[in-house]
Amino acid sequence: MISSFAELTAHLTSVNCRKRMAVANAVDSHTLDAVLRAVDLGIVEAFLIGDVASIESPHLFEHPLSPFVHIVDKPDVLEATLEAVRMVKSGEADILMKGLVNTDVLLRAILDKEKGILPAGKVLTYNAAMEIPNYHKLVFFSDPVVIPSPSLVQRTAMIKYAIATAYKFGIVKPKVALIHATEVANPKIHYMQDYLDIMQMWRMGEFGDVIMDGPLDIFLALDAERGSIKNVQTPVLGDADILIFPNFECANCFYKGLSLFAGAEMGGLLQGTDKPVVLTSRSESVDSKFYSIAMACIIS
Amino acid sequence: MISSFAELTAHLTSVNCRKRMAVANAVDSHTLDAVLRAVDLGIVEAFLIGDVASIESPHLFEHPLSPFVHIVDKPDVLEATLEAVRMVKSGEADILMKGLVNTDVLLRAILDKEKGILPAGKVLTYNAAMEIPNYHKLVFFSDPVVIPSPSLVQRTAMIKYAIATAYKFGIVKPKVALIHATEVANPKIHYMQDYLDIMQMWRMGEFGDVIMDGPLDIFLALDAERGSIKNVQTPVLGDADILIFPNFECANCFYKGLSLFAGAEMGGLLQGTDKPVVLTSRSESVDSKFYSIAMACIIS
Repeated sequence: MISSFAELTAHLTSVNCRKRMAVANAVDSHTLDAVLRAVDLGIVEAFLIGDVASIESPHLFEHPLSPFVHIVDKPDVLEATLEAVRMVKSGEADILMKGLVNTDVLLRAILDKEKGILPAGKVLTYNAAMEIPNYHKLVFFSDPVVIPSPSLVQRTAMIKYAIATAYKFGIVKPKVALIHATEVANPKIHYMQDYLDIMQMWRMGEFGDVIMDGPLDIFLALDAERGSIKNVQTPVLGDADILIFPNFECANCFYKGLSLFAGAEMGGLLQGTDKPVVLTSRSESVDSKFYSIAMACIIS
Repeated sequence: MISSFAELTAHLTSVNCRKRMAVANAVDSHTLDAVLRAVDLGIVEAFLIGDVASIESPHLFEHPLSPFVHIVDKPDVLEATLEAVRMVKSGEADILMKGLVNTDVLLRAILDKEKGILPAGKVLTYNAAMEIPNYHKLVFFSDPVVIPSPSLVQRTAMIKYAIATAYKFGIVKPKVALIHATEVANPKIHYMQDYLDIMQMWRMGEFGDVIMDGPLDIFLALDAERGSIKNVQTPVLGDADILIFPNFECANCFYKGLSLFAGAEMGGLLQGTDKPVVLTSRSESVDSKFYSIAMACIIS
């Protein structure tokens, strides 16, 4: 079982298998630094598609170019984006990564019915992993970015992606917590029926070999001591692998708070697409971008 | 300006003024420990109303009872609760505090049209203060407990209570951040029109001498460095005093995450009532209950 980003990196380098990654407009230094770290560690073969003239990273030309870095000059950002998506769709690449491209532009290319990479009927959502100092393992959570207020169908898909990802990390029987402000299934809360339905689906075996409980609050999900004071019986108690948040503000504020004040590190991916998509924002660290690439490598 | 709970405590002890506090069913040790700390520091005169036979705190009878602790024997929890509310309503107490009472029972007593303490038309909401190690001051936030999805009227009231509280802490021109997952006023988000309306009200002077901006994400509100990467101009940048969260799950998960993993301490109060109400949950620490009492002392 992989329980930290260091273990994830060690595992990936040990299996000695490079994944081919197409990077749309890979010109900003944060993106390039993260990509080159992955190349140097032997886990990625990178296709840097973009405007070569505007490349920000001095490292790139400092030493002889790795045989695993290919530069495809496309001065136009849209053209670069479409080429990166095309490479993924055609099977020439295993992973798509966003460089200095407006997220909307990349999403439009991904969602394009003909040339895009989202199969009809699939839910596009964001699944992230966080390493929180003082929590004993990685915690996966969804969705801090894409779906503001998920429907039952979307929430079900989010849970399934997160479970599939947890399995790839070697977690045998992931513990899923459906997060709320309390452990009380207040019927006045608009998503509570979804939670009850999802719990019922879980009992019927819909989610496979996992443990699930909800609604639970953060104390019950992540801390046995604080959770115990409430005297609530839950098999998840203080040991959640996966947090399903009720809405994206909630997931977003949770990880940004822990990122700023608890030294938490994050990686994340768009899921639902044919191949994983690394879509980190400019304000995220090089580490965070690298962990996202590593996540893409293990699930692709 | 009071920028930590230690400074708040020091300020309250220095002004040498005891607030009278009625505690409904003060029998559990966490509540009693917090109340007695406040009594010992000279900031509270406590009326412990409840079932004397079930008092859990050994401390209470270890040393001669302080002249500022009064025990009112009411073996019935509901009766104890009604008596505590009555004392506040009649002016015999300045602060109401929840002991071992079901929150619903206390709320019903508070909301009672005849005997309760919520004036007609007032919004009942929860305003909290958090001390986060590595943030340079206290941050007030609303509402992690009471209002799941605030209306415009409720949100406006929440902001006004938070501002009034910040003034009591000596903050001259509080900075208010309307929190969202990003800084983009996406019209598809259901509360975004409220945010735009509130910003307009602020420009018209409705909130007095404060700085306000939103939507902002947590990075922009609380960290100048991470916020700056986004190149978003905001007068709040990394220096928010008040966070108004879009919904209660968001506020709730934010503070519980920081409480577990960043060593954050919290105090909080019900506001909108005639007098402040200390309503902490059983799973909160003695410190947290004490800080809530201290907050009630400074605003009452």
